[in-house]
Amino acid sequence: MKKYVAEFIGTFVLVLFGCGTAALSGGIGGVTGIVGIALAFGLSIVAMAYCIGNVSGCHINPAVSFAMLISKRMSGKDFVGYVIGQVLGAIAASAVLMAIVNNADLGGIAATGLGQNGFGEASSVGLSMGGAFLVEVILTFVFVLTAMGVTASEKMGSVAGVVIGLTLAFVHIMGIPLTGTSVNPARSLAPAIFMGGQALEQVWLFIAAPLVGAALAALVWVFLIKSKKEQLA
Amino acid sequence: MKKYVAEFIGTFVLVLFGCGTAALSGGIGGVTGIVGIALAFGLSIVAMAYCIGNVSGCHINPAVSFAMLISKRMSGKDFVGYVIGQVLGAIAASAVLMAIVNNADLGGIAATGLGQNGFGEASSVGLSMGGAFLVEVILTFVFVLTAMGVTASEKMGSVAGVVIGLTLAFVHIMGIPLTGTSVNPARSLAPAIFMGGQALEQVWLFIAAPLVGAALAALVWVFLIKSKKEQLA
Amino acid sequence: MKKYVAEFIGTFVLVLFGCGTAALSGGIGGVTGIVGIALAFGLSIVAMAYCIGNVSGCHINPAVSFAMLISKRMSGKDFVGYVIGQVLGAIAASAVLMAIVNNADLGGIAATGLGQNGFGEASSVGLSMGGAFLVEVILTFVFVLTAMGVTASEKMGSVAGVVIGLTLAFVHIMGIPLTGTSVNPARSLAPAIFMGGQALEQVWLFIAAPLVGAALAALVWVFLIKSKKEQLA
Amino acid sequence: MKKYVAEFIGTFVLVLFGCGTAALSGGIGGVTGIVGIALAFGLSIVAMAYCIGNVSGCHINPAVSFAMLISKRMSGKDFVGYVIGQVLGAIAASAVLMAIVNNADLGGIAATGLGQNGFGEASSVGLSMGGAFLVEVILTFVFVLTAMGVTASEKMGSVAGVVIGLTLAFVHIMGIPLTGTSVNPARSLAPAIFMGGQALEQVWLFIAAPLVGAALAALVWVFLIKSKKEQLA
Repeated sequence: MKKYVAEFIGTFVLVLFGCGTAALSGGIGGVTGIVGIALAFGLSIVAMAYCIGNVSGCHINPAVSFAMLISKRMSGKDFVGYVIGQVLGAIAASAVLMAIVNNADLGGIAATGLGQNGFGEASSVGLSMGGAFLVEVILTFVFVLTAMGVTASEKMGSVAGVVIGLTLAFVHIMGIPLTGTSVNPARSLAPAIFMGGQALEQVWLFIAAPLVGAALAALVWVFLIKSKKEQLA
Repeated sequence: MKKYVAEFIGTFVLVLFGCGTAALSGGIGGVTGIVGIALAFGLSIVAMAYCIGNVSGCHINPAVSFAMLISKRMSGKDFVGYVIGQVLGAIAASAVLMAIVNNADLGGIAATGLGQNGFGEASSVGLSMGGAFLVEVILTFVFVLTAMGVTASEKMGSVAGVVIGLTLAFVHIMGIPLTGTSVNPARSLAPAIFMGGQALEQVWLFIAAPLVGAALAALVWVFLIKSKKEQLA
Repeated sequence: MKKYVAEFIGTFVLVLFGCGTAALSGGIGGVTGIVGIALAFGLSIVAMAYCIGNVSGCHINPAVSFAMLISKRMSGKDFVGYVIGQVLGAIAASAVLMAIVNNADLGGIAATGLGQNGFGEASSVGLSMGGAFLVEVILTFVFVLTAMGVTASEKMGSVAGVVIGLTLAFVHIMGIPLTGTSVNPARSLAPAIFMGGQALEQVWLFIAAPLVGAALAALVWVFLIKSKKEQLA
Repeated sequence: MKKYVAEFIGTFVLVLFGCGTAALSGGIGGVTGIVGIALAFGLSIVAMAYCIGNVSGCHINPAVSFAMLISKRMSGKDFVGYVIGQVLGAIAASAVLMAIVNNADLGGIAATGLGQNGFGEASSVGLSMGGAFLVEVILTFVFVLTAMGVTASEKMGSVAGVVIGLTLAFVHIMGIPLTGTSVNPARSLAPAIFMGGQALEQVWLFIAAPLVGAALAALVWVFLIKSKKEQLA
């Protein structure tokens, strides 16, 4: 049970600070800048990795849990508990973010919703649906492959959380102008529920594509990296 | 006694560089940018953690000391000595910052005081008092929970200071447009004393809310993370 | 064989995210900023170092492999396999990037190609051919010397990937206004093939100069640092 | 002798990349930004620390060597050799930087010299001579104290270079608008020699103030931190 509570807290922090920074940034070219939004997402993971990592492993992302499930690094029962904790944590974060935004006057910095993802006219470069699917598959593949690689080796234990967080940061630096960067179904679902409309209509892509990317990462990891490690052992 | 001197030095550095960078930044959208101000606060903690960490543990924040007190990781006597060192260090930093600003001509970059915190019309997005209290409780909760988590494990010793500093950085990236980010009563009190007026009238919130957030973090840490560690041990 | 596949994947990630961020940045002074592009290149290396480092050593750059070859840290056969993997990975990345750009409408942020390098009128500060050669030799010398130094010591194993990535980042911060920063023949060749024209005419410099810089780094490493280590051993 | 060559190379890299990025940045509010310049200085130290750290300790700064001398962590003979290596390395860097700038057309981004330091009308906020002296003493005190603290403990060995580099970065984030940030006599002397005029007239301050700051750091380190370590040992 404590693991699921840890996943709730970790996803709450990731979504509140990542999506919150995006929502308060004034958008592309705004006061915070792409690097600032990317660091808010990435460093949230760094903090949570060292805070709840010993409790739950700090997935805080259904795509990461899915990759762990299909590479047999977690059980089906835990997968369900983790995802429930993650989705509820993300929803709680979006609710708190809405309360903050409603208590402020964002006139000075253009309002950009609750940090939702999008494609087509909701993408700042008008990326098509097919392009967005491709982008999210690749971004998630790189993020999840790195997370699986760095956590598989005990030797890298003390820096693993920093590496995973910096990876999420650069994935955002490239992806923010394209889709806003999801790579995490829970992170996309929660703001879409509160925003409704276009965000909710498009949210299927930000659930499906990250899961495809995560599955590809698990396959590559099993055949390329894991077997190599076994040869060395 | 040396511990208290170390807390004086550490808090002096944090407040001088963090608030100093904010004061010289030209404000939201100015020359330094939100990421720059956030890094000045965060990396000051990194430096001090590796400099005075062996002497005092490098709290340099009454909210962190408060969380350590109520989770029984420090004595009441030390708590008093630490807080006195922290507040005096912060006041010394604001005095030095005032001397620097008075020797410069900030016409080129809009003057923004001494890095004080604020809400209502003193918030760059006009965040209400209630919103500011909620924000400061959450920001401090995340910062203190991470600090308690990462320092509890010997294994993470060598990266703990980096993780705590990066956490303070992202807490600032989101919080700067809202309240300027306090999460530290000493850091807010010192510039308010020198600025007076609105900053001094509002400073109670930046003392009370961080203490509430720190208390919540201590509770979560004791029940969620600490007990988990004991099961593992 | 797995090593060569690992080099393919690593170079794919470096070129897609590095050149991709440059292509979507709106150029010098654009929405992403020089620091953002530099971090995309640098943090891609960080991620790949901890992901494929155990498989191939994560060169993902023909200049790094060349330095390892002439300092006798890799065989001639492996050198050929590594470079083929790197070049094919870079070409695959440029192809994917082209597909993404073709599915977007970059009108809002000025199109800047596929992240190709250049000198003369293709340099944002009009750097001459001779100046560009000098710059690329020095940038590569510093990058490769650091990579060779930090990977030679077992003791630094856990932070080596972070150090190499941060080095690539600062080499880009200075070099982006000058040549766009190559320091990697594969990273320059792939976008030049797809862009053709001036980029293809100039690409010889971004192959030759990095190899010269890498050779100098190998020489300095052998005579200055390696021998020192042997004295200590 | 190899130690002195290592100091030459390290200081060459620091001054070329740090001052070079400043010179190509377009100044305060220019294309690179304060964070970019600060990272160029800071990450240069990170790279060199892991590259030549085993050879010379990577001081690459006469103020650091001075602090090591007066706290009896280096001999007088080595001090002279180190400083000669550092100054020659810095001069070589300024010469190369001048060659690069002369081969470019910086019309697009306002020329800012060779990254020299300054006060009065040469400070972007018009900081007075007294204010500049105070600022440089404090900046150097914090930088050198951190460098001495983190290198004194074997346990922190693997992250020491990262911590020192991040410290140099935040010292620059605050100091760039004030004096451009010296904290290093060799880094200031070299561009002043090539620029002449006002830069050369003011360079005494950027030699004297860092030495004062370093001496203060050595004193605090000996009495506060070193003795504490001995009690623990």
